[in-house]
Amino acid sequence: MFKIRYLVATIILTSTMSVASAWEALPVTAPAPADNPTTAEKVELGSMLYHDPRLSSTGTVSCSSCHNTMLGGEDNRPNSMGVHGKTGGRSAPTVWNSAFNKVQFWDGRAASLEAQAAGPVTNPIEMGMGSWDDVVARLKAIDGYQRAFTEAFGPNSINKDNATKAIAAYERTLITPHSAYDKYVGGDKAALTAQQVKGMNKFAELGCSSCHSGATFNGGGSFQKFPVRDASSYEAQYHLMQDKGLAEVTKKPENEHFWKVPTLRNIALTAPYLHNGSVHTLDQAVEIMAKLQLGKTLNKADTTDIVAFLNALTGPFPKQQIPALPATPGKTFNK
Amino acid sequence: MFKIRYLVATIILTSTMSVASAWEALPVTAPAPADNPTTAEKVELGSMLYHDPRLSSTGTVSCSSCHNTMLGGEDNRPNSMGVHGKTGGRSAPTVWNSAFNKVQFWDGRAASLEAQAAGPVTNPIEMGMGSWDDVVARLKAIDGYQRAFTEAFGPNSINKDNATKAIAAYERTLITPHSAYDKYVGGDKAALTAQQVKGMNKFAELGCSSCHSGATFNGGGSFQKFPVRDASSYEAQYHLMQDKGLAEVTKKPENEHFWKVPTLRNIALTAPYLHNGSVHTLDQAVEIMAKLQLGKTLNKADTTDIVAFLNALTGPFPKQQIPALPATPGKTFNK
Repeated sequence: MFKIRYLVATIILTSTMSVASAWEALPVTAPAPADNPTTAEKVELGSMLYHDPRLSSTGTVSCSSCHNTMLGGEDNRPNSMGVHGKTGGRSAPTVWNSAFNKVQFWDGRAASLEAQAAGPVTNPIEMGMGSWDDVVARLKAIDGYQRAFTEAFGPNSINKDNATKAIAAYERTLITPHSAYDKYVGGDKAALTAQQVKGMNKFAELGCSSCHSGATFNGGGSFQKFPVRDASSYEAQYHLMQDKGLAEVTKKPENEHFWKVPTLRNIALTAPYLHNGSVHTLDQAVEIMAKLQLGKTLNKADTTDIVAFLNALTGPFPKQQIPALPATPGKTFNK
Repeated sequence: MFKIRYLVATIILTSTMSVASAWEALPVTAPAPADNPTTAEKVELGSMLYHDPRLSSTGTVSCSSCHNTMLGGEDNRPNSMGVHGKTGGRSAPTVWNSAFNKVQFWDGRAASLEAQAAGPVTNPIEMGMGSWDDVVARLKAIDGYQRAFTEAFGPNSINKDNATKAIAAYERTLITPHSAYDKYVGGDKAALTAQQVKGMNKFAELGCSSCHSGATFNGGGSFQKFPVRDASSYEAQYHLMQDKGLAEVTKKPENEHFWKVPTLRNIALTAPYLHNGSVHTLDQAVEIMAKLQLGKTLNKADTTDIVAFLNALTGPFPKQQIPALPATPGKTFNK
C-alpha cells in the first residue's frame, strides 16, 4: 500500500507547546487482498447484495439498513434494529473506510471485509437467515443474480465465498480520501480553519493520536483497552464495563475490555458514540475518552477545538447510483 | 394531461375472436397539481425525505423501506414491517406510477400523493412518529434540510405541507413510460412476443380491461367491489373478506369490499398479491381475479399468456442517485 507521509510542523499555531506528528492523508484507493482483486463487475454485484433486503429472513433488512451510506455509513442509533425489531448491545460501526481496517467488528473478530460480510446475514438479531445455504438458495433462484455472479466470477459461481467477496469489493469503493483534513495534509493550508488546526494540535498533544494514528485514525488495526482508567463513576450512566469486548470472543481474562481502535474518519456523522452507543454527542465522547484513556479533564475550549478538527475528517462521499435489484417476476420469497 | 390513444387491431393474432380495445401508452411525464408544480429543487429534497429513516420514531424506517424503488416500488412482503417490527393487514402498493393514480392507498382515502405522504409517518405501526410537529422539529434541527427547503420553497419553509409536497414531487418522477407494452402501443410491433400479444388480447376479451383500463391499467381512479362473486371457498386460504376496504373508512355498508382499482404497471415485480398480500404468485392472482371478478375459470395456457402480457408492463426504471442525507454533526435523534 502506497502511503504519503507528511510531517506537519505545528509550532506556529499551538500556544502551549510544540509537537510534531506524522499526519497522513488517506490513500485514494483501498487495498484489496490478492485473492479478491477489485473489478467493476464485483463492485456492481456487491452493491446489489449490499442493498438487497432479501438477504434477511423478513425481507426487510439489508446491509445498508444498519450501515447506511446515506447516514455516515451506519444508522445513528445506539444499537441497530434487525429483523422483527430486535436489537443488540453494540453500535453499528461505519462502513465508510472500513476497507482500511486491519480487523472488523468492534471486537476485531473478523480478519477481513469478506469475513465480516458473512456474519450479520445469519445473526438471529440482525438479518436472521437460517444459514448461508438458505441465502445461496435464494440467490440461485434469482435469474439476475445468476447473470451478475457469472459476470463477476464465471459460470455457476453463486456461493457464500463469492457473495462476501462481492460485498467486500463494493465496500472497498466506500472511502473518503478527499476530506478537508486530507487537503490540508496534502498542502492546502486553507482547507482547515484556524480552530481546526488548533484542535488538530491539541489532539496530538493530549495523546489521542497515540491510539487513533495513521491515515485512518485507527491505530493500524491495534487493540486497546477501554476504559483504561477507573470508569466506575460513569457506569450508572454509560454502562461501559458491561461488555467485555475481545474477551467475549477469546474468553481470556487478559482480553477483557479490549477493543479494536475504531476509525475517526466521518466520526462527526456517527453519533451516538462508543461501543454501546451510550454517549449522545461528540463533545461528550471526546471528554470521556480524554478522561478515561488519558486521565485529562478537558476544558470547554479544548473540546470544541478538537471536535472542530474531527469535523474535518468528514466526507466528501462519492456519488452512487441506487442499484436495480434483480427481480423474481410473479413471485416473492416473503410468504 | 396530454394522452395519445392508439387503437390496436387485434384481429390477426387472436385465434378465438377479434376484439378492439383502446390501448394507451403511459405519458412520459406525470401530471402535477397546480399548487405543486414539479421543480428540480423539490424533487431533490423529496428524494432525501423519501429515503430518510429519521422520519420514523426508531430512525429505521423510511418511505423507501416499504416502497422500495429497487424492489418494484414496494417490499415484496404480504404486509409491511414498520417500527419495532410491527405489521399491518394490507400489502404496500407500488410507488412506481402512483403519480397517475387519481386516489391513493388501497381504500383510496387520500386524494393526492401529497395527502398520502402525510399518513405513514405518524401511523404507529408504520413510521411511528408522535405527530407531524415532531417531524417538523426534527427537520428544522438539520441545517441541510433548512437549506434544501429554502431552495425548494423559500426561507423558513419547513412544515408538513411542504415536506409532503416535496415527497410527492419526487414520486412524480418515479414513472415507467417505456415498457415493452408502451413501445408496442407506440408502433414497435416487435416489442411484444407473440405470446404477450395473445395474452393482451385475452386480457381484453375476458374483460380484465373493463376495470384495469387506461394507460395505468387502474381504471382512472375508479373503485370496484372485490370479490364480486362468492369467495367463500377461498376464505380459509386467502381471507379476502376480512378487510372491508372502503367501508373501513366511510363506515357505509354499501362501500363494503370496495377498493381502488390498483395499477397493473410493474405488477410482475410486486408479489405477493391482492390487498392483503395473501396470494403468492401472479399466476394465482390472475386465476383468482378471473374467477371472482369475471366468473371465468382460466386454463393454464390462458393464464400463462396473460402473465406473459403483464410482464410487458414492467419498467424500465430511470436511474437514480443515492441521495446524500443532510447530517446532524456530532449528535443524533436516536437515544
